[in-house]
Amino acid sequence: MSAYQQLQQRFKRHGCLEDALAVLHWDTATNMPSGGAEVRSEQSAELEVMQHELLTAPETGDLLAQAAEDGEQLDAWQVSNLREMQRLWRHATAVPADLVDALSRASQRCEMIWREARPASNYAQVQPALQEVLDLTRDKARAKADALGCSLYDSLLDQYEPGGSSAQIDGIFDDLAGFLPDVLPQVLERQAREPAPHQPQGPFPVDRQEALGRRLMKTLGFDFNHGRLDQSLHPFCGGVPDDLRLTTRYDETDFVSSLMGILHETGHALYERGLPVDWRHQPVGQARGMALHESQSLMVEMQACRGDAFLSYLAPLLAETFGGPAEVWQSENLARIYRHVEPGFIRVDADEVTYPAHVILRYRLEKALIEGDMELGELPAAWNAGMKDLLGIEPPEDRLGCLQDIHWYAGEWGYFPTYTLGAMIAAQLFDAARRENPQVETHLAQGDFSPLMGWLRQNVHAWGSFMDTSDLVQRVTGRPLDAEVFKTHLRQRYVET
Amino acid sequence: MSAYQQLQQRFKRHGCLEDALAVLHWDTATNMPSGGAEVRSEQSAELEVMQHELLTAPETGDLLAQAAEDGEQLDAWQVSNLREMQRLWRHATAVPADLVDALSRASQRCEMIWREARPASNYAQVQPALQEVLDLTRDKARAKADALGCSLYDSLLDQYEPGGSSAQIDGIFDDLAGFLPDVLPQVLERQAREPAPHQPQGPFPVDRQEALGRRLMKTLGFDFNHGRLDQSLHPFCGGVPDDLRLTTRYDETDFVSSLMGILHETGHALYERGLPVDWRHQPVGQARGMALHESQSLMVEMQACRGDAFLSYLAPLLAETFGGPAEVWQSENLARIYRHVEPGFIRVDADEVTYPAHVILRYRLEKALIEGDMELGELPAAWNAGMKDLLGIEPPEDRLGCLQDIHWYAGEWGYFPTYTLGAMIAAQLFDAARRENPQVETHLAQGDFSPLMGWLRQNVHAWGSFMDTSDLVQRVTGRPLDAEVFKTHLRQRYVET
Repeated sequence: MSAYQQLQQRFKRHGCLEDALAVLHWDTATNMPSGGAEVRSEQSAELEVMQHELLTAPETGDLLAQAAEDGEQLDAWQVSNLREMQRLWRHATAVPADLVDALSRASQRCEMIWREARPASNYAQVQPALQEVLDLTRDKARAKADALGCSLYDSLLDQYEPGGSSAQIDGIFDDLAGFLPDVLPQVLERQAREPAPHQPQGPFPVDRQEALGRRLMKTLGFDFNHGRLDQSLHPFCGGVPDDLRLTTRYDETDFVSSLMGILHETGHALYERGLPVDWRHQPVGQARGMALHESQSLMVEMQACRGDAFLSYLAPLLAETFGGPAEVWQSENLARIYRHVEPGFIRVDADEVTYPAHVILRYRLEKALIEGDMELGELPAAWNAGMKDLLGIEPPEDRLGCLQDIHWYAGEWGYFPTYTLGAMIAAQLFDAARRENPQVETHLAQGDFSPLMGWLRQNVHAWGSFMDTSDLVQRVTGRPLDAEVFKTHLRQRYVET
Repeated sequence: MSAYQQLQQRFKRHGCLEDALAVLHWDTATNMPSGGAEVRSEQSAELEVMQHELLTAPETGDLLAQAAEDGEQLDAWQVSNLREMQRLWRHATAVPADLVDALSRASQRCEMIWREARPASNYAQVQPALQEVLDLTRDKARAKADALGCSLYDSLLDQYEPGGSSAQIDGIFDDLAGFLPDVLPQVLERQAREPAPHQPQGPFPVDRQEALGRRLMKTLGFDFNHGRLDQSLHPFCGGVPDDLRLTTRYDETDFVSSLMGILHETGHALYERGLPVDWRHQPVGQARGMALHESQSLMVEMQACRGDAFLSYLAPLLAETFGGPAEVWQSENLARIYRHVEPGFIRVDADEVTYPAHVILRYRLEKALIEGDMELGELPAAWNAGMKDLLGIEPPEDRLGCLQDIHWYAGEWGYFPTYTLGAMIAAQLFDAARRENPQVETHLAQGDFSPLMGWLRQNVHAWGSFMDTSDLVQRVTGRPLDAEVFKTHLRQRYVET
C-alpha cells in the first residue's frame, strides 16, 4: 500500500471512532439514565484519546511526509483529502498533550463556576477561572499559530472555520456594523406602522407539535430511513450522514421555538446527508466548517421558512394542527410573529436583524482578548459599550451581558463569527439559487423544497471539504463572500415590503 | 509503570471499546433506522478490529511475558486479572487473522442461507455452507486447542465457559439424560391428574404489560438510574454494568412470554450490576462465563419466579393489571400455566423439565461433529433419533429438528451446554441460599427479593471472573457442580407437590 492509502486507512479508523462518539453523545442526551454518566465520560474520553493518538502517532507524520514525497498520481479529491489530513494533523500535533489536558481541566472548572456565576450575575466570581482559561487558550493559540503560520486569533478560528481569516471577517463585519445602526430604525419604524400580530393561544399539545415537526421534516426532504427525531434538553443535530439524530424540546405554551428549532436542525441534517458518499470516514468527506454548516440551517430556518412563500404553505397546516381563531393563522399574521424585530440583550433570543450585532460584538472582544489588546477586567464595560454602540441598549447586569454565553467559559474561542458568516452565506446562496432557478422560491409555496435542496446538494453538500468556504461561495455564487446580499435581504424583508 | 500496570491500561482501552460496542449494539436493536445498518456494520467492525489489534499486538505479548518474569508483588485480584488477560490473549493470538476472517465470512453466508432453508425445512440447501463453517471451525478449534492444551471441543467451549471441560459435562449430562426418561412420565402423569388450567383471555394491552414489567423489575432490585427497558425484536440484556439496557417484545395475545422474558433478562442485568466496581473495564471484573450468567437469569425466572412463594405475590398484581375472571389469577392456576410440562420439538418453547434434553442432544451432536466422530450428512437422522431417545418424540421435518437453532449456522459451536449448566447452577445456588437463610424463599411471597439478591451479590456477582465457575460453585454451595440438586428440584416441583 502507498503512503496515501495507509493514511486513508488510518483516517477511516479515526472516522469510525468519530461515529461511535457521535452515537454515544446522542445516547447521552436522549436515553442515558443519570447513573450512566460517569462511565460514559470514561468511555468517551478513552475514545477521544485513541483518536488523538491516531493523529499524533509518529507513523502519521511519517506517512504524511512520505505521501508528499511520493509524488503518487492522486486525483483532485485525493489531493484535497491529503490536504485535510495534513490540516488535522497540524492542529493535533501543534499543542503539547499537557497543555491540552490543562486547558480541558481549566475549562471544565470554569464552566462549573460559570453555571453559578451567571444566574448570580457575578462576573468577579468567574473572572479568575476565566483568566486561567484565557491564558491557556492563548498558549494553545501561540502553538497553533506557529504550526499554521497565522495570527493567534486565526489559529483558533481555523479550528471551526478552516481557511478563515480575521482580516476577511474584519472587513465584512465592519461593513455590517456600519449598516445595522442605519437600518434598524427603519425596520422598527416600518414595524410600528403594522398592526400588532394576533398571538396564538396555547396550550399546544406536544404530540401535535411533534407530528407537525415530523411532517415538515419530510417536506424538507428528511428521510426517516436515515435518521430520527427525539427529545433532549438542548436541541442538536447529531449522528452520522447515513443515520442522523435530530433532537428538539417542546414547550406547550410556545410552539414556535420548537418548530423553528426542528427546521433549523433539519437544515444541518440535510447538509450532512448530502455529503459525498464516496468519502465517508475520510476528512475530505466531512462538512466544511461551522460557517457553511450554519448557512445550511439558516438557509432553511431564515431564508426559506420565514419567507412569504413558505409561510403561505405553513399557515393552513398550523390552523389544522392547533385550531382556534382563523386570523391567528393567516400567513401575514405569521410573518409578523416570525419576523418580529426587537433589540434585546440575549443573543439566542435575537431576531434575524439584530443577531449579527451580538456576534460582531463577541468577535471583536474575543479577538482583542486573544491578541492581548484587552484585559478580562475590562470585559463587562467593553461589552456594555459595544451593545450601546451597535443596538442602542445597555445591559443592566452581566447576566444579560458578558455572562450569557457558555463559549468562552467552556474554552471555545474563535467560534462566534461562524454564526453570522453562516447567515451571510445563506443569503448569498439563496440569492444565487433563485437566480439560477426561480422555482427554488416559488415552489416553497407548495411545500416543495426539492428545487432548493437539489441545488444545495449539487452545489454545496456534495463538495464536502473539497475546497475552502470562501472558494465555494465564490464559485457557486459568482461573487466573493461579503455582506452585500445579506444587507439587501434584510432591507427587502424588513424595510421594503 | 510496571508491565502489569501497562497491561491494565491496555485492557482498560479494550474494555472501553467493548462498552462502545455494547451501546452501538443496543442502539442497532432499538433505535437505528434501517438506512443506518450499513455504516453501523462498518463502525462496529472497525472497533472490533481495534480490540483484536490491542490483544494481538506484539507489545501485549511482551508485557504479559514481562509481567510473568517481573515477580511484582500482586494481590490476589491482580493475579486473577493477569490470568484472565493471558486467557484473552491466548484466544486472540491462537487463530491466524485470515482464518478469523474466512470463518466470519463463511458464517455470515451460511446464516443467510439458513434463514431461507429453515422455513423451507431444506437441510440439503444449507449443508454445503454449514460444511464450510464446520471445517473452518475445526481449524479454529485445532489452533486454539494447541494454544490452550485441550481437546478440540473444549477449546471452543472455553470461549463461552472458561475452564469448562467436556469430561465434566459428559458426566453431568449422562446423569441427567438417564434421569429424564425416568422422571418425565411421572411428571406427565401427575399433571394429568390436575384440573386443566384456566387460560387468561387477552388482549393484554402493551402499556399495562410494560408497566407491570417495570414494576417487577424494581421489585427485583433493578435500579432505573442505572438502566432502561426498551423494545426490540429479540429480547436481550445489553449495555454496561452502570447503565444496563434491557429489551423485550410484547404480544397482546400473550403476556407470559414478555413477562417471563423481562424477569429472565433482569436476572442477567442484576448479575452485571453486581460485578466488582473496582474492576470495571478489567478482565477480572467481567462476568464469569455464560453458564454462570444463565444461572442468574434462570435463578430469577425459574427458581424464584415460577415458585409458589413468588406466584402468590404475583397473582393479585396480575388480577389488578389485567382484570377479568378471578379464578384465572389464583396462584395455583398460575402455577399450572407457568409450570406446564409438554415434550415438544422446539428448544426455545420448552419447559424447565424437558429443556435439558434439547441441550444434551445438541451438545452430544456438536461434540461429535467437532471431534470428527460424525459427518454432517448424518446430522438430521442423528438428531431425530436423539429426540426419540430423550423425549420420545420424533420431528416430522428438519425445520422442527436440526434446522431450528441459529447457533451452528452462525458459527457458534460450544455454546449450547451453558444453558443447562446454568439451570443446574441456579438450582444449586438457590438451594444453598435457602439453606443459609430461609428468608431467601419466604420473603419472595411479599415480593421481597433483597435476601436472595443480597446473597447472590455477595456470593456470586461480586466475584466477577476471580475464579472459575466450578470453583465458585464448590466454594459457595459446598459441593461440586453436578445434576443432583437440579434433579431434586425437578422432582420436588413437578412430581412430589
